[in-house]
Amino acid sequence: MKKLIKNGIVATATDIYEADILIDGGIVSAIGTGLNAEGAEVIDASGCYVFPGGIDPHTHLDMPFGGTVTKDDFESGTIAAAFGGTTTVIDFCLTSKGVPLRSAIETWHAKSEGKAVIDYGFHLMISEINDETLSQLPAIIADEGITSFKVFMAYKNVFQADDGTLYRTLKVAKEHGALVMVHAENGDVIDILIAEALAAGNTDPIYHALTRPSELEGEATGRAITLTELADSQLYVVHVTCAEAAEKIAEARKRGLNVYGETCPQYLTLDVTALEKPDFEGAKYVWSPPLREQWHQEKLWNALRSGQLQTLGSDQCSFDFKGQKDLGISDFSKIPNGGPTIEDRFSILYSEGVAKGRISINQFVDIVSTSSAKLFGLFPKKGTIAVGSDADLVIFDPTAQRVMSAETHHMKVDYNAFEGMSVTGEPVSVLSRGEFVIHDKQFVGKPGAGQYLRRSRFNQAALAPANKLRGLSNVGSR
Amino acid sequence: MKKLIKNGIVATATDIYEADILIDGGIVSAIGTGLNAEGAEVIDASGCYVFPGGIDPHTHLDMPFGGTVTKDDFESGTIAAAFGGTTTVIDFCLTSKGVPLRSAIETWHAKSEGKAVIDYGFHLMISEINDETLSQLPAIIADEGITSFKVFMAYKNVFQADDGTLYRTLKVAKEHGALVMVHAENGDVIDILIAEALAAGNTDPIYHALTRPSELEGEATGRAITLTELADSQLYVVHVTCAEAAEKIAEARKRGLNVYGETCPQYLTLDVTALEKPDFEGAKYVWSPPLREQWHQEKLWNALRSGQLQTLGSDQCSFDFKGQKDLGISDFSKIPNGGPTIEDRFSILYSEGVAKGRISINQFVDIVSTSSAKLFGLFPKKGTIAVGSDADLVIFDPTAQRVMSAETHHMKVDYNAFEGMSVTGEPVSVLSRGEFVIHDKQFVGKPGAGQYLRRSRFNQAALAPANKLRGLSNVGSR
Amino acid sequence: MKKLIKNGIVATATDIYEADILIDGGIVSAIGTGLNAEGAEVIDASGCYVFPGGIDPHTHLDMPFGGTVTKDDFESGTIAAAFGGTTTVIDFCLTSKGVPLRSAIETWHAKSEGKAVIDYGFHLMISEINDETLSQLPAIIADEGITSFKVFMAYKNVFQADDGTLYRTLKVAKEHGALVMVHAENGDVIDILIAEALAAGNTDPIYHALTRPSELEGEATGRAITLTELADSQLYVVHVTCAEAAEKIAEARKRGLNVYGETCPQYLTLDVTALEKPDFEGAKYVWSPPLREQWHQEKLWNALRSGQLQTLGSDQCSFDFKGQKDLGISDFSKIPNGGPTIEDRFSILYSEGVAKGRISINQFVDIVSTSSAKLFGLFPKKGTIAVGSDADLVIFDPTAQRVMSAETHHMKVDYNAFEGMSVTGEPVSVLSRGEFVIHDKQFVGKPGAGQYLRRSRFNQAALAPANKLRGLSNVGSR
Amino acid sequence: MKKLIKNGIVATATDIYEADILIDGGIVSAIGTGLNAEGAEVIDASGCYVFPGGIDPHTHLDMPFGGTVTKDDFESGTIAAAFGGTTTVIDFCLTSKGVPLRSAIETWHAKSEGKAVIDYGFHLMISEINDETLSQLPAIIADEGITSFKVFMAYKNVFQADDGTLYRTLKVAKEHGALVMVHAENGDVIDILIAEALAAGNTDPIYHALTRPSELEGEATGRAITLTELADSQLYVVHVTCAEAAEKIAEARKRGLNVYGETCPQYLTLDVTALEKPDFEGAKYVWSPPLREQWHQEKLWNALRSGQLQTLGSDQCSFDFKGQKDLGISDFSKIPNGGPTIEDRFSILYSEGVAKGRISINQFVDIVSTSSAKLFGLFPKKGTIAVGSDADLVIFDPTAQRVMSAETHHMKVDYNAFEGMSVTGEPVSVLSRGEFVIHDKQFVGKPGAGQYLRRSRFNQAALAPANKLRGLSNVGSR
Repeated sequence: MKKLIKNGIVATATDIYEADILIDGGIVSAIGTGLNAEGAEVIDASGCYVFPGGIDPHTHLDMPFGGTVTKDDFESGTIAAAFGGTTTVIDFCLTSKGVPLRSAIETWHAKSEGKAVIDYGFHLMISEINDETLSQLPAIIADEGITSFKVFMAYKNVFQADDGTLYRTLKVAKEHGALVMVHAENGDVIDILIAEALAAGNTDPIYHALTRPSELEGEATGRAITLTELADSQLYVVHVTCAEAAEKIAEARKRGLNVYGETCPQYLTLDVTALEKPDFEGAKYVWSPPLREQWHQEKLWNALRSGQLQTLGSDQCSFDFKGQKDLGISDFSKIPNGGPTIEDRFSILYSEGVAKGRISINQFVDIVSTSSAKLFGLFPKKGTIAVGSDADLVIFDPTAQRVMSAETHHMKVDYNAFEGMSVTGEPVSVLSRGEFVIHDKQFVGKPGAGQYLRRSRFNQAALAPANKLRGLSNVGSR
Repeated sequence: MKKLIKNGIVATATDIYEADILIDGGIVSAIGTGLNAEGAEVIDASGCYVFPGGIDPHTHLDMPFGGTVTKDDFESGTIAAAFGGTTTVIDFCLTSKGVPLRSAIETWHAKSEGKAVIDYGFHLMISEINDETLSQLPAIIADEGITSFKVFMAYKNVFQADDGTLYRTLKVAKEHGALVMVHAENGDVIDILIAEALAAGNTDPIYHALTRPSELEGEATGRAITLTELADSQLYVVHVTCAEAAEKIAEARKRGLNVYGETCPQYLTLDVTALEKPDFEGAKYVWSPPLREQWHQEKLWNALRSGQLQTLGSDQCSFDFKGQKDLGISDFSKIPNGGPTIEDRFSILYSEGVAKGRISINQFVDIVSTSSAKLFGLFPKKGTIAVGSDADLVIFDPTAQRVMSAETHHMKVDYNAFEGMSVTGEPVSVLSRGEFVIHDKQFVGKPGAGQYLRRSRFNQAALAPANKLRGLSNVGSR
Repeated sequence: MKKLIKNGIVATATDIYEADILIDGGIVSAIGTGLNAEGAEVIDASGCYVFPGGIDPHTHLDMPFGGTVTKDDFESGTIAAAFGGTTTVIDFCLTSKGVPLRSAIETWHAKSEGKAVIDYGFHLMISEINDETLSQLPAIIADEGITSFKVFMAYKNVFQADDGTLYRTLKVAKEHGALVMVHAENGDVIDILIAEALAAGNTDPIYHALTRPSELEGEATGRAITLTELADSQLYVVHVTCAEAAEKIAEARKRGLNVYGETCPQYLTLDVTALEKPDFEGAKYVWSPPLREQWHQEKLWNALRSGQLQTLGSDQCSFDFKGQKDLGISDFSKIPNGGPTIEDRFSILYSEGVAKGRISINQFVDIVSTSSAKLFGLFPKKGTIAVGSDADLVIFDPTAQRVMSAETHHMKVDYNAFEGMSVTGEPVSVLSRGEFVIHDKQFVGKPGAGQYLRRSRFNQAALAPANKLRGLSNVGSR
Repeated sequence: MKKLIKNGIVATATDIYEADILIDGGIVSAIGTGLNAEGAEVIDASGCYVFPGGIDPHTHLDMPFGGTVTKDDFESGTIAAAFGGTTTVIDFCLTSKGVPLRSAIETWHAKSEGKAVIDYGFHLMISEINDETLSQLPAIIADEGITSFKVFMAYKNVFQADDGTLYRTLKVAKEHGALVMVHAENGDVIDILIAEALAAGNTDPIYHALTRPSELEGEATGRAITLTELADSQLYVVHVTCAEAAEKIAEARKRGLNVYGETCPQYLTLDVTALEKPDFEGAKYVWSPPLREQWHQEKLWNALRSGQLQTLGSDQCSFDFKGQKDLGISDFSKIPNGGPTIEDRFSILYSEGVAKGRISINQFVDIVSTSSAKLFGLFPKKGTIAVGSDADLVIFDPTAQRVMSAETHHMKVDYNAFEGMSVTGEPVSVLSRGEFVIHDKQFVGKPGAGQYLRRSRFNQAALAPANKLRGLSNVGSR
């Protein structure tokens, strides 16, 4: 059945205008003034923005970590995402040394199938490049549509890859059209700092931050960029938290390198003092890299505004305060890293960014959705409101006022990272491929309705699609 | 009458998709798949892109300079612009000390009325800020919709303003919502260098370049930025030619300042060796700032690609080689500065940028049109293809091959600055507010059809329109 | 008569060792262990350092300014200098438009002859370069041994030269072997800021600082450096106060430019809050450029320590609080600029620098004496303790503790800029060319004993004296 | 017996003057004009400079490497050094995992005792920090006077330490007063690049350079600096070859960090094209890091001149072309790294630096001798000409012209790295603690005459000796 969204203010990464949107077969089929469509379900969006659905490029659903598992799986996680205005997530498929990459991917398909309420894709983690893994990557790109690989420069003896592995991954990515993502912190030194802190009896959550100084994030970011330049490849730095790292990315981009950066809502709004909360509450705010001193926030906003950082990921990785976070009650290094952010990412960026005048509404759409679609091979199927694109849409009331809270959120975790934060604006209804997932703030979706996304290869031409289109033959690859 | 453009590939600064565009009353009224409109004139755009019409933010039509007048006036200049794919120009209204600003504006209206074949606006040049001129600016902004002021840091004893004037202009611009544009070269030192060169008997065109080193452009750019920061205002640096200046702008933007930059097609494609052409032909390539060593070109492309420069202006300022440029045959300082570029700006950016893979097609649209619309208060009326916007459209054949030449161009000047350059892509038809100006490569427009554009005030919220829209009352200000 | 200084710790810009120093004919004739010299006057320096006498490269003695005259003339000023450990001053010879340069120099000779108790030289101020002044400079360098010229980028309509004048001066300096000194602040903009402040009724001393922001010092410093690079010349930036300017100098030096910088004791120890002292006391702290926020001090210390700034000038320019500073009681712009610092420069650098571990004792000697000698054509006659050099020596007790105060200082001014500051270390005896000027903390010198210094031409080889010496013929030019 | 050197031009890092030098008991006892000393041996230095003996902070004598041993041992190596004007070497004591540090030091004492003709000290290499090695370092510093530790960031699986080891070494160094030296290249990536090159059949010497790009030196340098900053420690970067690394050091110093850098004569004068010489001759020029493109040379000279690099080491590590270098004839990675440079270091710096006007003669002395003495705990015993210092002196004829050649050099190796290079200046006689080692260009020294140097702890106060001396009790610690 057709749907007709009337009277909304349509906003994309470039445009903003009043128009009606006609959806047919899950696809935007027309945008216009005073559209009529016989038999179509009419949705009134008066007084609301209509945004492309958010794309969260960084989630960890149903992920084992340090002997426990994240609370939100593909069902609860995607429901919460949808409530928040997100219609696509790209989750990290974890691998372990010794386990074939294909098995890891199968495991991730098993975790997600029949559960997701919105569409999803996978990034693949790379901890070791040897001749065998190397030989598998081209087929994984081709068959699975997994076109982004994550390399960790931290978590020594767990996920950490050495610089040779990172370099080889960058070379493969270049050759086969993938984007390399790095967690950029110097794991070797952090390992020593943690050992020193614990040896000195410093076990409180704040030492999580003190043993991961921002200098080590800046250093690793610069190192990854140097390797990218040598490999003539492309790089995406996940969860940038600090001036040092943002500066390295800006410098690289100025020289014309294909280097991109992501930050997260927690780094834009919270600071390191949160880890000092009494009664072990600081553990709720344990992310890696850690929250920083407050002055970094302005640097991150500037970087988003001037286009040096391109995306916002949630880094959703939720653990209960009671029963999970408290694994580290006597040793900060045992606190499961991560927090619940998938639901609030979209609204926080709107409220802190647009409503407070830090970024334009077009930049908001770009950061929360479009850039991720372009970088990760989902555009123009996802990431915009345009004729022919999936009708992944958010009807958003910019005048709503509410307060973030675990009382009201939909993640399956016993605290909210932004508890008590007032925000302006709220998603009212959310559609995935033309079907309501959220309708008038009620969940109406269906586990399993979300589809796995085979993504296009990374290509500077995916960002600069002209080349693909020069022969005019392959428009509509969606 | 309605028009329906069918089967084109629509490209904006964000999107690219296949769709039909319906035009009603000069406005885009619908975009969709398989649109039908009874009675509409149908235009087949198969195999072509449909772009928003180009916006040229920097022209000098019918302008007196050094005892002569530019060859192209608002008629020939806008016809050539339209042939090239440009549907809006913003021309510089020159002022002189002693002449009331209002008179200068009247003069410019007189030059343009009844002549322009496409829409146009004016920037106002400021050479002197005193209490009288100060008092007039708010009314000029309000009444004339002139929301950008140009200040020259060069051309000593002619246009050059001192730093105090620039600072005061920046303060007024901040308060009343205008954007200050600077020609950034250190005129004091250039004046000495020219005198030294002439005293040494160095009169050839190449000395034009040698007496205006890039360091002096970088210096003046940095100085203007410092003043902008002190005034908490906004700055647009015209015709950036070199690494030194691009670097200063990048640095400013990284710090979050509202600083923007423009380059020109000549700086992207020609270099200083052109001024050494024999038989005084170097005079054809005399622009200020001058053409630079070739290595600067890559820096400019990187700056466009990474978003540190936002726009491309033609700096159209055409003088005949015979009869005008030769005023300087025995003294390079008497060569009229400038060249004919209004017609080729759009195609050169497409061919050298998109077709050669340096920028994406979305970046092309942004640079050639959208960014100028947003910076100069014309968006969303101009600068995009969206429901409700003016139907200023270019139907562009990306497969066409042609050669730039004075033989075939439409500017009224006896040489072409890019003579012999092969380009890929060509505008086939061009519409202004829904009416053909160019139809199948023929001029079908009408002098006087172009309208004067009262522009909106500069506002960071013009770039970030969310604030304006928060109350949802003023959408459709176009 | 010979003198023998026994048992001191001799310190130069490189060395530190225990030795005796034999002086013969005002010259150091031998340095050794257990020296004996029949008939020599023996001075016991046990427990003391023996330093080269300080060189103050920046003084304004007996200088007219804004309708008044600095309190200290060549007699009281040099007596105070000697008390402080300084044995050479280079004073600024002021010029006015219309007055021949030679007359200005004669005036300065008249001011100093018969008065100075230590040796002295002149810098020449340049406010206007025209063909006449140009033609005089070579002879002034040759005849007068004035090998440094000062150009002001501030004090609009008083001393300020335009960029063309600065550039021409740099060219002349390059050709004839002189060093150009700049007062680097953007006078045009400061002029506007002062007018705005006064128009708003802001007349208190603090507005002196607020109308001269550090950004304008950084800007002018960068501008002067650009001109120096273009002229392939050499530059000395006087009284650097802030991070912005120090950064520009560091960047220039990194590129291999002959750019040097001076700071002053007040900028290392006082900050802008001093201008807010009640009862108009802030006026005592009015220097141009002004005192800055405290965080700049660490940047200046780092710059001294890493060799990016080379010298310390006092910028001695003393006006009484009562009767002179109060000319500006109702208008900060009328407060005479400057303060009494000639006496305390040496001890403050020792106490705050060496005693607090910020710089080494060798760096202390370099900054307080040697570098100025090398830059201004006085080395090796002045600036070191070496065989053949003038016996300008300071016997310094590093254990002494005292408090700076107008009660005890020897300048003829009614306040001390560092009133109440405790310092470690004190000059005990001071010799000029082998004669005591200060003996056991008592003045024993004689007005007129100081000699005018004809200085050598600036030459990178003056800093790199190897070239001069390659033929081995002209050692001993002192 | 006393010696009296008459009529030379004495040059130190600060001074230059004509004087006689009296030596008594191997120590400089007096410097003066017209000195007489009954019974002293008189040496006429007319027409010559007298310099402090050179200090070579970086040698590898009698060192095993890749299955072979460097040709020059402590006898031939120090003889060659002395011919070249060097009177002190600091050699690297190599360690291996599993071998106690003390044993390694004993081995090095055994190699040197009875052989060295000039004084020498040891740096200690650190490849692994564990609790055992950690516990030994304080005693090694105290007992052996070894106050500098070398860490390799390259040579994977051979010498390379991880970042954690580097960090821990920096912390120990800070606590106990040592200076950490790093070989800064990213060994992980180089390892991959070498494997890729060999796999592609690229075995020629030039691939040594191509697999060690300068970006990886810059990266590692920056990383080591970040760790130094975190550890609040001090760092000395050995053999800086490129702009990227020099830039990082300059930046660190500007921020006030205790970071120092060394370059080598080969990087100042040779470039990467040498590795392309036919008939495997490129192997003679295989150093790590490798020779760079020529443009880096100017950056290194600028860095020396502006004080951003402080020292010149030879990195003497000599292997015969026939019989040793040819181990790599079919695989560049098997070419022993290093070359013969100990003899020519001093003269090349004089000739290319001073005689060509790039640095001053004082800077020459500082770089070739004084700075190493201060950094490595040898000052003021070594590194200067001052009363009380060792009479390690070079009588140097600045007018001599000669050509570097294996025909005439004194190293026991079958080629000269600078074969055919013309230089200006030559050491005529060289004294170590007052005894001739070289007399009128003849070797007159004695193996075993050289003494092992127990060095002082690193201390910013060793560079800033004021603090030590404040109590005036411990002068003469030499």
